[in-house]
Order: sequence, then structure tokens, then C-alpha cells
Amino acid sequence: MKPINVGLLGLGTVGGGTLTVLRRNEVEITRRAGRAIRVKVAAVRNLEKAQSLYAGEDIKITTNPMDVVENPDIDTVVELIGGTDLAKSLVLKAIANGKHVVTANKALLAIHGNEIFAAAQAKGVMVAFEAAVAGGIPIIKAVREGLTANRIEWIAGIINGTTNFILTEMRDKGLAFDTVLAEAQRLGYAEADPTFDIEGVDAAHKLTILSAIAFGIPMQFDKAYTEGISKLTKEDIQYAEELGYRIKLLGITKRTAQGIELRVHPTLIPYRRLIANVEGVMNAVLVKGDAVGVTLYYGRGAGAEPTASAVVADLVDVTRMHTADPENRVPHLAFQPDALSNAPILPMSEVCTAYYLRIRAFDKPGVLADMTRILADLEISIDAMIQKEPDEGQEQVDIIILTHETVEKFINQAISKIEALATISGKVTKLRLETLG
Amino acid sequence: MKPINVGLLGLGTVGGGTLTVLRRNEVEITRRAGRAIRVKVAAVRNLEKAQSLYAGEDIKITTNPMDVVENPDIDTVVELIGGTDLAKSLVLKAIANGKHVVTANKALLAIHGNEIFAAAQAKGVMVAFEAAVAGGIPIIKAVREGLTANRIEWIAGIINGTTNFILTEMRDKGLAFDTVLAEAQRLGYAEADPTFDIEGVDAAHKLTILSAIAFGIPMQFDKAYTEGISKLTKEDIQYAEELGYRIKLLGITKRTAQGIELRVHPTLIPYRRLIANVEGVMNAVLVKGDAVGVTLYYGRGAGAEPTASAVVADLVDVTRMHTADPENRVPHLAFQPDALSNAPILPMSEVCTAYYLRIRAFDKPGVLADMTRILADLEISIDAMIQKEPDEGQEQVDIIILTHETVEKFINQAISKIEALATISGKVTKLRLETLG
Repeated sequence: MKPINVGLLGLGTVGGGTLTVLRRNEVEITRRAGRAIRVKVAAVRNLEKAQSLYAGEDIKITTNPMDVVENPDIDTVVELIGGTDLAKSLVLKAIANGKHVVTANKALLAIHGNEIFAAAQAKGVMVAFEAAVAGGIPIIKAVREGLTANRIEWIAGIINGTTNFILTEMRDKGLAFDTVLAEAQRLGYAEADPTFDIEGVDAAHKLTILSAIAFGIPMQFDKAYTEGISKLTKEDIQYAEELGYRIKLLGITKRTAQGIELRVHPTLIPYRRLIANVEGVMNAVLVKGDAVGVTLYYGRGAGAEPTASAVVADLVDVTRMHTADPENRVPHLAFQPDALSNAPILPMSEVCTAYYLRIRAFDKPGVLADMTRILADLEISIDAMIQKEPDEGQEQVDIIILTHETVEKFINQAISKIEALATISGKVTKLRLETLG
Repeated sequence: MKPINVGLLGLGTVGGGTLTVLRRNEVEITRRAGRAIRVKVAAVRNLEKAQSLYAGEDIKITTNPMDVVENPDIDTVVELIGGTDLAKSLVLKAIANGKHVVTANKALLAIHGNEIFAAAQAKGVMVAFEAAVAGGIPIIKAVREGLTANRIEWIAGIINGTTNFILTEMRDKGLAFDTVLAEAQRLGYAEADPTFDIEGVDAAHKLTILSAIAFGIPMQFDKAYTEGISKLTKEDIQYAEELGYRIKLLGITKRTAQGIELRVHPTLIPYRRLIANVEGVMNAVLVKGDAVGVTLYYGRGAGAEPTASAVVADLVDVTRMHTADPENRVPHLAFQPDALSNAPILPMSEVCTAYYLRIRAFDKPGVLADMTRILADLEISIDAMIQKEPDEGQEQVDIIILTHETVEKFINQAISKIEALATISGKVTKLRLETLG
């Protein structure tokens, strides 16, 4: 059969990995796909560098991305340039020219996905994006095709390797956030400007995509609640540990009677759960379906070849599906485009979860009584409490409270009242806790 | 669009679960598949029971399976009767009549899969079998479609829930195999005749399927090495624990320069690996690909609705793919039928792995020297060794040795020589150890 001709936008880490994997496993991939997958052209920013790196290869290298997206010889465009402006216009142009698109760009899809998928639908082409979430783990395929029997109840995932590496190091070595971030930057696990990773924005992009394909809703990144790990202290990690929990940056999306929860924040998880033991840069996603129960998917969420693994799997899918009637292909957002639901995304104040509170109090009689009264008045029940001994010469002690499930607005009211007590010093630290049972 | 009409062969646990899931999630499934999936007819053995259970349903119930496989109104046949004789003839008849087939029958595929897939290929129909391996975990889809970029290096899985439940209980409660088996039978986790589960046959059926789709080889169940857990003692579990390992019944298939390993046996795994912490009836499969690295898939491997989850996912796949040109569909064995390889399955004597040896020895000088000399002469190096104190009034002690990797025939030679020593009492216990790194 005739080969599939591919054009790359971008030839950096993932683009280079994609070429490497296609070359090394050419025989294996062709045995699977039934036809060859050939990269014919790649658009880059730095022509000289790319030409010296790929000198011996039979690939046209260009600085003009139009040589890819308007090239009549190209069947499928792989977008790996990142960002949301140029990437969007190039992807839309490729679609308009009738080309299938494979992308690893989670920001692009979380922000402009609805427009891109509508354009692709109108043109009858595929936009595949396995590489956009959790790197090499085939989580998009699992949710969109493997669990189609299920009403998905919730998804909870460690979907950012940088922050999981930082949290692992903070716990293992008892180090502060800033120290470990510097180490992560030295090792290349964190970028010079680490904001998108450490503040949870990258995880929220990925979670937005997972939420859409789990519940059949449009992408709504602007409604995601995002809280990162930069304010997390090693003391909180240690107290959580004493209570039998690990702290992970989780992306959580959940279906409730009131609407869809869509939130990224540091979360206490019972240490016996498999996902609590996912360490370093690894990713893992838990999916709860009503028929299958809980399933978990684990692997590398980033890196040249793990991401290329997903890009190439998408290329094989596109190869296998490109002759199928568009009506019968796997829908972009898992549900047929005319069957998307408009379930609302809940504001964070309406989310229901359990909480870890750390309160710095003067070591005086009546402190606990005041706090427990405030919680009881708001019908927040206490699951566990520890009071630490004051440090030598200190008048203040740390009190840690784990609550049962309540609504976020009630815990916020409780915290305001607790902070107003004369016996309390400073702000209350609030972390969320999920049992993921 | 026109609905897909389904006929069931068998309406027991999984058949009933399939009906339940299709009914309960009808709206959700139709939103995904783009058309309704309707069960029109079901063939059962006990007509009265089925008629009373499904009295209000719009399903024709029959005792004649030909009413399903020769029914011109039926597009897709779901085979859930188990066994390899009647199931084979019905599946072949359905294929001959141009019907797609969905099956949960691992024994059927492991033993007759090559013939069945050839018939399906010739007729241009699909045979889908996600439910045959690891219940609701979409592992067939992950390997066959999600990891197509990779040269798969190995797969190692806990793919039998009964034995994992027994091993978990033996370790947690320090109980003997027979005691826990009786408990598992009482709870319905083990059958009255538990042989297929406890002797590893069921796991070997599933592993045979995984091996075929991982490496692009025909099904070769007759060449699988199969060793169950019925001879495992609680002492071995405890000694393994002391050395930092858990014992799991693993199905392992690995590509080597000499051929393919295909083996099911109790295996020591470092306790820090996620898969070592998969407890009770849960299943988990590790897949190592050259690009993606290690990925893990975890969930329920059995039960009415988890298995139905996979059956219905296959029905949705068939629904989505049935108008596609057969040449472009996902190949049954992951690789195109004309691209299967004939890599040999290695005999167990040629397999390379590490070992746990438990040796009962008289507590006399020179015992250790004799044994370590035997191992050294065969170039087997020792990773760890513990000698237990003799029990009160006993002259014999347990010596436990962990070796580095060696070839099975060498360890067998060493064991023969060790057993011939005058200072050794009885047989040496040999278990295999995998680091799964």
C-alpha cells in the first residue's frame, strides 16, 4: 500500500524523538500499520542547526511552515511547536487544506480545542492528541475507546512530572520547595521559568482535555481551578505522612449532580493507594467508571521518546482510520459532536471534599474547644487531629485537623472564624484530601 | 443511524452484566457510538431461568445457538459460553455467516485463535477480545493500538485474580495455601475445581494472547511454561518479605535474541515496584516498550460488570469500525496477518532470570562452602543469602539464597548437585525473581 506522508512542525525534543522512533522501529511499525509512515518535510526555526543534525536524512527542512501545511504531498501534519497563537493558525490551515493533524499541544487544545475540532469535523479530518496528556501513557485511548461502556464518575491524575519530582524529593530528603526546584532546574526536569508547571497550569490544560472526553463536554479551561505546589512546606508533607497520607499534585475532575468539578491542587492521598506511590517524574491517572470500577494507567509523562511513542501511535491510528467514513471514526471528544452535554463546571466554592488544616495556635487552654465548636457549628466533622509539642522556648504549637467531606465554602467560613480567634497565630493552611476509594 | 443488532451466546454472569451495562448506560453509549447497540436475541442452556430473569425485556431467548449465529438480523455475535469445543464451532459459524464476533473466551483464542483469526480475515469480519485478558482493563487496546510505536521488550502481569487473592491473604494473615483456597472458594473467588486458576493455566491462556499481540507471533499456548501456586509455602512468602520481595503469580513474556520467553510462575518482585503492591483480586499488567519505557495498567480482572465493560467497549469498536475497509482496521494480532513473525518460543531450560533458593541443611560446618562452590563452578553469582537459626531442638536450618541472573538449565544443574550433598535434607525450593526495572 501507498505510504503515508507526514510533515512536522517543529523538530526539537519531541520532533527529534519522533524521527528516531520512526526510523528505529520502521519495520515493526510498518508490520502493524500495513503501510510505511514517512516524514517528508519538517519546518524549523533554526535551519542550520536542523540541517546539521539531520544531514543524512531524506527530509526536506524548511523555515517556512507553509511548506508543510500547504504541501499537497503531505497527508498528515504533526504539530510540535507549542504555544497557542502560531500553532493555532497553522493547525487550522492544515485542516482547511484537508490534512489530518497530530498534536502534543495541550495548551492549544485546552484553550482553542472547540474551534479546532469543529473545523476538523466540518472538513472530515482527524485531530489526534494522545501525546497531549501524560506523554506515552495511552490514556486518551483508554478513556475515549477502552471505557466506552462506562459512565465515567471521576478521573484523578498525577499529570505533571516536574511537580511530582519536586514533591518526591521534598518528602524523601526533607528539603524545602525552593531547594528542590533549583535541583529540578539543574537536572532539566523544570524549565527556567517554571510557572506553568509549579502553579498547576500545565496540569490544568491536561485535565481540561481529560474532563471533556470523560464527560462529553466542551473544553472549558477558563473554568478550571488551579493551585500549585509553590506554597507547600516540608512540615505539611511530614504531618501528612504521620497521618498516613502522601501529598501529590492531582488533577481531579468529577461528575456530581450539581455539575462537573475541574480542579488542580495539592492533595492528601492515603499512602496505601497505588497512585500515592507514583514517584519522581512518573505520571499516573486513575479513572473510575460505573461498570469497570477503578482503573489506573502509569508511565512516563514526558521526554523525547515517551512523547514520540504517543505521536507515532496517533500516526498509526490516522493511517488505519483515514479511509473510514468520518461518521464512523472515534469522535474527537469521545462523544459524537451533536451529543456533547452542557453540564456546568462547578465553582470551587461548591466542590465537596475532605480537608487537612494546619493551625498555629498559642498553647493555651480552650484553643481546641473554640476550634471544634466553629467546625461543629458548620456541620464539619473531624476525622483526625494531632497537636504537636511546642518547640523549645516556643509558645506556639501546630494543630493539624483532618475533616470529613464538606463543601469548600463551609471550610472557608470555618477558616475565617478560626483565624479571627485571639488564640490563633497567622493564617490557617488548607489542603484537600481525597480517599480515591 | 441504524442500530447495531447483537446476539448473545450465553446469559450468565458476564452476559447478564453486559445487558445491565447496555441498559443502564444506553444514552451515554449511544452518544459515543453514534448509533444504538441492541441485544435482539440470546441463546441460553436454561430457558426457564433466563425467561424469568429477563421477563420484561425485548429480547428473544432461545436454547438454540443457531438462532443467534444464523440469524440474518444479527450483525455481531457475543460469545460468552466459555469452553473450546462448542464455542469454536459457533464462532466459526458466525464468521462464516459474515458476522463480527466479540468474545471473552481466552482458552478458545489461546488454543484455536490462529484458525479463528484466519477465518475472520478471509471473511472480512472482526473478532474482538478485550474481555479475554484482564477483564475491564483495556490492555489489548493499549498494546495493540496505544503502543504501536514501540518494539515491545517484555510484558509481565498479574492476570489471575483468584491466585492474587490467595497470595495476598497468605502474606497478610500468615495462612497456608489450603486454608486460603477454601476461604476463596467460600467467597466465590475460586471455583469448586480451582485447577485452571491455581495451576496457572488461566494465566497462561491470557499470556499467550498478550505475547501474540506484543511480538506479532501466532498463538502458541502449547509452548507456554506453566507453574501454579499450590506448592507455595507461607515460609517462602515470609522469607521473600524479609529480603524485600513480594511473591506474585506473574505471566511473563519477553523478547530475547534466542527467541520468545512465555512463562507463568510464582515470582519474587522488589516490594517497592507498584505491581508488587497490587492486592486481592485486582489485576495489573506491566508493558516495557523501547520508546515509552515501562507502562502499567491496573484494574479489576474479573466480575460481571468489569468484564462487561470490555465486551461493550468491543461492541462500540465494532460499531465504529464496521464500515471501514477491512485492510485498514486494527489487525487481530496487532500486526498485519502477512507480517507475523515465526520467532521461536524458548524452552524453559533456556530462559534467563534470577532465582530464590530455599535449602534445608544440617547445621554443620562446611555446608555453605559446599553450596557456594557448586554455584561458583556454574558461574552463578549470589546476590543475597540468609541463614535462619535452627528451631528449638532441630538440627536443620533453612538457608535462603538469591542469585543474580543465570540460565535455568544451570540453576537446575546446581540444584541437583546441592541436593546430592550429604549435608542437605530433602528438595531445594526454587522460585524465580524478576526486578522488572
